[in-house]
Amino acid sequence: MSSNRLLDDFDAGKPAALARVVSIVENHRAGFEEILASLHSRTGGARRIGLTGPPGAGKSSITALLVKRFRDAGLKVGVIAVDPTSPFTGGALLGDRVRMENVALDPGVFIRSMATRGSLGGLAAATREVADVLDAFGFDRLLIETVGVGQSELDVARTADTTLLILVPESGDSIQTLKAGVMEVADIFVVNKADRPGADRLRNDVELMLGLRKGVSFGNTPAHHGVDLKRLNPARLAREAAKTDNPIEWTPPVLSAIAIKEEGIDEILTALDRHFAYLEQSGTLRTRRRERMRERVMDVVEDKVRGRLWKDTGTMSWLELQLPAVEEGSATPFGVADELLRQRGELVRGEEDK
Amino acid sequence: MSSNRLLDDFDAGKPAALARVVSIVENHRAGFEEILASLHSRTGGARRIGLTGPPGAGKSSITALLVKRFRDAGLKVGVIAVDPTSPFTGGALLGDRVRMENVALDPGVFIRSMATRGSLGGLAAATREVADVLDAFGFDRLLIETVGVGQSELDVARTADTTLLILVPESGDSIQTLKAGVMEVADIFVVNKADRPGADRLRNDVELMLGLRKGVSFGNTPAHHGVDLKRLNPARLAREAAKTDNPIEWTPPVLSAIAIKEEGIDEILTALDRHFAYLEQSGTLRTRRRERMRERVMDVVEDKVRGRLWKDTGTMSWLELQLPAVEEGSATPFGVADELLRQRGELVRGEEDK
Repeated sequence: MSSNRLLDDFDAGKPAALARVVSIVENHRAGFEEILASLHSRTGGARRIGLTGPPGAGKSSITALLVKRFRDAGLKVGVIAVDPTSPFTGGALLGDRVRMENVALDPGVFIRSMATRGSLGGLAAATREVADVLDAFGFDRLLIETVGVGQSELDVARTADTTLLILVPESGDSIQTLKAGVMEVADIFVVNKADRPGADRLRNDVELMLGLRKGVSFGNTPAHHGVDLKRLNPARLAREAAKTDNPIEWTPPVLSAIAIKEEGIDEILTALDRHFAYLEQSGTLRTRRRERMRERVMDVVEDKVRGRLWKDTGTMSWLELQLPAVEEGSATPFGVADELLRQRGELVRGEEDK
Repeated sequence: MSSNRLLDDFDAGKPAALARVVSIVENHRAGFEEILASLHSRTGGARRIGLTGPPGAGKSSITALLVKRFRDAGLKVGVIAVDPTSPFTGGALLGDRVRMENVALDPGVFIRSMATRGSLGGLAAATREVADVLDAFGFDRLLIETVGVGQSELDVARTADTTLLILVPESGDSIQTLKAGVMEVADIFVVNKADRPGADRLRNDVELMLGLRKGVSFGNTPAHHGVDLKRLNPARLAREAAKTDNPIEWTPPVLSAIAIKEEGIDEILTALDRHFAYLEQSGTLRTRRRERMRERVMDVVEDKVRGRLWKDTGTMSWLELQLPAVEEGSATPFGVADELLRQRGELVRGEEDK
């Protein structure tokens, strides 16, 4: 199928074309850049909701319940389930197939499981790209479920407009031991399995921690690419400056849920709507999306650099010739890297593409 | 403390200097490149042993038992525990503090837990750098324990000379569902909790899979940096060519262990020695270490590129000016990335560092 034909089918809303485009983009197959570029102007309509939390917290169950409610409201929903740690192949989608079965044949729902991205630029970038495709296709809500709360998951969560952190009483000794960054990324806290012992204490701990931090921004903190973007980011500076004049602040609510009994879902939906209204009214949506766009461009730049350097056989042969000296200790990786960039760095400008 | 003084103390074998150097290197603090460069020629003495496998497989227990045996044999041991997925701070080192307590005060053992590396070039690179420091300090064995078997863990495992894959009967439906790459990375298989139901079947499944693949190389497959290095790598081509003349092949053994009863550890130690002898005699050690060196240089190059582009305020300001057009849809991330590299790509050559 020609690329134009594929995009025509995509525009016509054909599910097969969607699946095909997602695959091309996810695996960076030939033509993916052109496809993403042509879809780019149509993105921005979907609300992107991240769900993160420790294993066993019930993210899949809550995702499934949210899908159901969104569908009941006539909204089209895309689900991206990201599991960078699974040792198993993508079979057990969402870990909860049975519950999702009733939506599997619904054309208003699209589910994609992504396990790794290898070296193609990272899982967060892949998630963002697939989310862009679903957004352009016309999905109203995108649920991005990440399994675990490590660095890659935090990066994935940062691609969302709103992030839910789902905790359970048994998930850890205490909230104090949560890794730095996990608390900060959350816009909405959900204590699931709220009927179990320890739920009150967990909710209390979270509220205490939030209370201690009152007035502190809970926005996504961009610390990507080794740069403290806060320093460089005019949009963020503007936002911070505007804050004193702007009475609209967001204090992350701490909700309770018992997913297995379908309890607490209304409250989550209400909080999601409230948070989105806050994002729009405070201008945060704009700045978050701008941050996302900036990271997107930086990711693409890094991808292109890798491609232009490492797919160049001249560069690889040159590198090969330096390795014996590095092994003997008469050269160091740092010296060789400097020399490589001095001699071959011109390649990253892409003039040879012409 | 001056950098020279620190390195003198490091050379004198002072534990405080080691800890300090590891921290500087791990966090890429000022001077880390000079330190790594000055230690570089002294690396290569340590055997690097990776331990990977699904959560709960007993990696920590087996690590602890190996540490004990190596110490009994008078060998100095460094342990790097890598957990990219833990939502918790580095408190519960090796998940098994009690067992490790008896070695905590032994100066012949150094334990470091690494959780994330953020954007500083990835966990595999960080592991390699810290391993280099421990190697240069004079540790004889480095045990690199990774929790889980996702992509980052596979990348980490690839930094080792020998990789143990530890499985348990309950770890999964069957070996068939293991993610591609997990089986290939293993030099030695260990079925832990071998007295549990399903252990025989698991061992059988693994052996069957290995039998099916007989004659296939079980070497580390370098698929980093988005390049099929096999195509470009003269060392590997030479090795593959040499194979027909070289009768020394490695068939990964499938061992049984019951870590909790300290059973099967002798067999693991014997297999480790046998594998190292194979690595040396077949020339594989040399080619693996060369691959590692190549990846090391490529990592450093990518790090430098990131630093030179994203820490340049001119580039960041330029990027900022393009974002509104990207948001409106009149420009795409790909177009802006191309233009950025065309206009600012010269920076990566590092001439401005002079």
